[in-house]
Amino acid sequence: MSRPPSRIDSVIHAVRSRISSRLDGPGSRLPSVRAQATAMGVSVSTVVEAYERLAAEGVIAARAGSGFYVAGPAAPLALAEMEPRLDRAVDPLWISRQSLETPPGHLKPGCGWMPSDWLYHDGLRRGLRRMARADSAQLVDYAGPLGLPALRQTLQRRAATLGIDASMEQLLLAESGTHAVDLICRFLLKPGDCVLVDDPSYFNYHAMLKAHQVQAIGIPYTHTGPDLQVFASALQEHAPRLYITNAGLHNPTGAVLSATTAHRLLGLAEHSELIIIEDDIFADFELRPAPRLAALDGLSRVIHVGSFSKTISAASRCGYIAARPDWIEALTDLKLATSFGGGHLAAHLMQIALTDSGYRRHMQAVRTRLADARKHTLRQVQKLGITPWLQPDAGLFLWCQLPDGRDASAVARQCLREGVVVAPGNAFSQSQRAADYVRFNVSQCQDPKIWQVLGKALQQHS
Amino acid sequence: MSRPPSRIDSVIHAVRSRISSRLDGPGSRLPSVRAQATAMGVSVSTVVEAYERLAAEGVIAARAGSGFYVAGPAAPLALAEMEPRLDRAVDPLWISRQSLETPPGHLKPGCGWMPSDWLYHDGLRRGLRRMARADSAQLVDYAGPLGLPALRQTLQRRAATLGIDASMEQLLLAESGTHAVDLICRFLLKPGDCVLVDDPSYFNYHAMLKAHQVQAIGIPYTHTGPDLQVFASALQEHAPRLYITNAGLHNPTGAVLSATTAHRLLGLAEHSELIIIEDDIFADFELRPAPRLAALDGLSRVIHVGSFSKTISAASRCGYIAARPDWIEALTDLKLATSFGGGHLAAHLMQIALTDSGYRRHMQAVRTRLADARKHTLRQVQKLGITPWLQPDAGLFLWCQLPDGRDASAVARQCLREGVVVAPGNAFSQSQRAADYVRFNVSQCQDPKIWQVLGKALQQHS
Repeated sequence: MSRPPSRIDSVIHAVRSRISSRLDGPGSRLPSVRAQATAMGVSVSTVVEAYERLAAEGVIAARAGSGFYVAGPAAPLALAEMEPRLDRAVDPLWISRQSLETPPGHLKPGCGWMPSDWLYHDGLRRGLRRMARADSAQLVDYAGPLGLPALRQTLQRRAATLGIDASMEQLLLAESGTHAVDLICRFLLKPGDCVLVDDPSYFNYHAMLKAHQVQAIGIPYTHTGPDLQVFASALQEHAPRLYITNAGLHNPTGAVLSATTAHRLLGLAEHSELIIIEDDIFADFELRPAPRLAALDGLSRVIHVGSFSKTISAASRCGYIAARPDWIEALTDLKLATSFGGGHLAAHLMQIALTDSGYRRHMQAVRTRLADARKHTLRQVQKLGITPWLQPDAGLFLWCQLPDGRDASAVARQCLREGVVVAPGNAFSQSQRAADYVRFNVSQCQDPKIWQVLGKALQQHS
Repeated sequence: MSRPPSRIDSVIHAVRSRISSRLDGPGSRLPSVRAQATAMGVSVSTVVEAYERLAAEGVIAARAGSGFYVAGPAAPLALAEMEPRLDRAVDPLWISRQSLETPPGHLKPGCGWMPSDWLYHDGLRRGLRRMARADSAQLVDYAGPLGLPALRQTLQRRAATLGIDASMEQLLLAESGTHAVDLICRFLLKPGDCVLVDDPSYFNYHAMLKAHQVQAIGIPYTHTGPDLQVFASALQEHAPRLYITNAGLHNPTGAVLSATTAHRLLGLAEHSELIIIEDDIFADFELRPAPRLAALDGLSRVIHVGSFSKTISAASRCGYIAARPDWIEALTDLKLATSFGGGHLAAHLMQIALTDSGYRRHMQAVRTRLADARKHTLRQVQKLGITPWLQPDAGLFLWCQLPDGRDASAVARQCLREGVVVAPGNAFSQSQRAADYVRFNVSQCQDPKIWQVLGKALQQHS
């Protein structure tokens, strides 16, 4: 297994990379044997052998007389193949991969999380040391079906400060915030259902809804929440089962639901039997809490979810769901059936971190640091003629319009070539109406190289 | 929130418990207000108020002139409601909950894992101390799409010792072994598909397949693997998409696939385009490795999965998938869409534990301890006239037949009342043909009380 890679391996690797980077989708024709051999400076027989091995694995297939093609989708749920291909730069999965696989040294103003030294590593270290001395059972046993009671109690208190009254039986731990939303989607949706999302909204919702084979409808987001007129028409026209949104700070815009919009929105939902998932992952970034739909609604049709990946750690993941008791009951069954007991250790670490006296100070410092970074980023983008859609007073994001209708995907591709990961607007937009927008994460915008590379890309695509 | 529970709360709690313990399913009529008041020694108005609050929450519903009923299923995927109710004692979700929620002091010869002091808590403690000194990035950052490279390398070496040749691009980390199997099912199956399972087999497969709305067909398991004649007919008759089985030690029987059966089974699969998931969760319990289907097949149609919940820790969960590269590619997309980055910290801890020189010694000690516990358990069951179906030389389980066709569900219910959790055979049997079988976990069979309670229950149900 440790033999040095042969020439055949190099060809195999090259073909695989093109497929995995989505440069070659299913059905695309591979370069001819001769062309590949010339391009890679290897013999024809090397390429023949490489293609044959890939064909034996089913990665590519030969068609008599016409060469080799990338094999078709292996299964109904090959996400990448489920709908006409988006521009690669706005494919949500491609963006996730770019952010998660960034080579060292790349800058990522487009990614969705803070640099690692901004997170609560000190608290986590303390937690790890404490857990190293804990009872064996805490280190090795499965959690109960609902998850660690002490953490659920902490979450109950935190919810209460937002006006959300949840009993202990209404709180279920999940593996992560994403897992929480996915579990609820599995519980509520069937293929072909219709789901409302904000437009723009967190791009991974789009990928997840695609996995559930449901139709997502984007509702334009305003400075005070979704556009209620469009929302009401969508209820009429599509009879959606679910609406997924952020609680508090909205991703990617940084806007916040106003009390009036919240009340009217909930009224519309009640009238149409619409269920709402409110994803509260940015709660601890707020300077003052915005209204929560779950609070107004009393956890009747609103399901409240959250996690600590953005504030404490994304390496020790733990999410939660607050909902009506009978739904929690069914969600617990579904969690057991599909992931059995949860990660108890991660729950212990989150419980220690959240109740650590340092956590409040940590988040205070983060909020101050973000305020400075936001000012800095605003100055830089404005110098380049980029206009913020809103100047939020909290959170990670600035949602910005490029000058003169520049194509953000083209700009993002150009920046990536120079080692800067930019998040183009249409990755967030169900309707693909944000072609000249980008999302900046102000905590990842410190390096001056970002503005040089971006400035150059803007010039090239003017 | 810390007020003492009122009488109204007690009534609410009593109703909720009956619903959550499945004593009252959807549509069941609640006791009348008067009957409930008398039964609980509270006033009629207390019960009225409690019922009204539960009705406001949607947990129960009033029907004019006929009282209160448990509300119907909230959603298509309320697992508990998806098919005719099984006897509660063999409902897989009920068994999972019993094992996970066992009150302190209960004994659980029926559960699927070892006591906490048998697991690798020492290794985990060392890992936690080491991680407390790690780089911040390791403590707080998301993992890359495939998961921690160092752990995937370790898994690659471990796979090689079983004859499974997997490249690094063929190894994907998941949140747990269960998550791994679930992810593959999401990738491969659509509602209505047909899936083969061993009969008997791990009960949570049944719950999971129910969640996928597919039809499970049980294939009788023999001392050397599935009954190939029945297997071949099932391929003809049902054209199943998938077969899920254990690699190595089979749960619940402790039997092991013979080389001959493995080869013939794979031949049948190749002929019918059947895909196979081989769940290798008990690998480190084997005294000598049984043949792996993934090794024979070269990871073409066989997907190999595993985790360390049974050997190292179930609190810090981490599973993996080895499969052909294009499937790993699609599974990675699906993992990102539905759970985003994985639990990096858990992966680090597993990597530390697996490469710790103490791990080999730990598992040696566990295997010796299990051999003693197996002898002890065999003596005890035989004293009660219980017959082992097989006397395995490794693993946790003994699959045993009760004397004279005793009903294992009735025996299990009786034992539970006396604080002993027994696993009745039909929980493992798709065909419900194991009514007089039980599964013993020899590591949980030390306490003499188990045999007293079980002996008494056998007498009562003779």
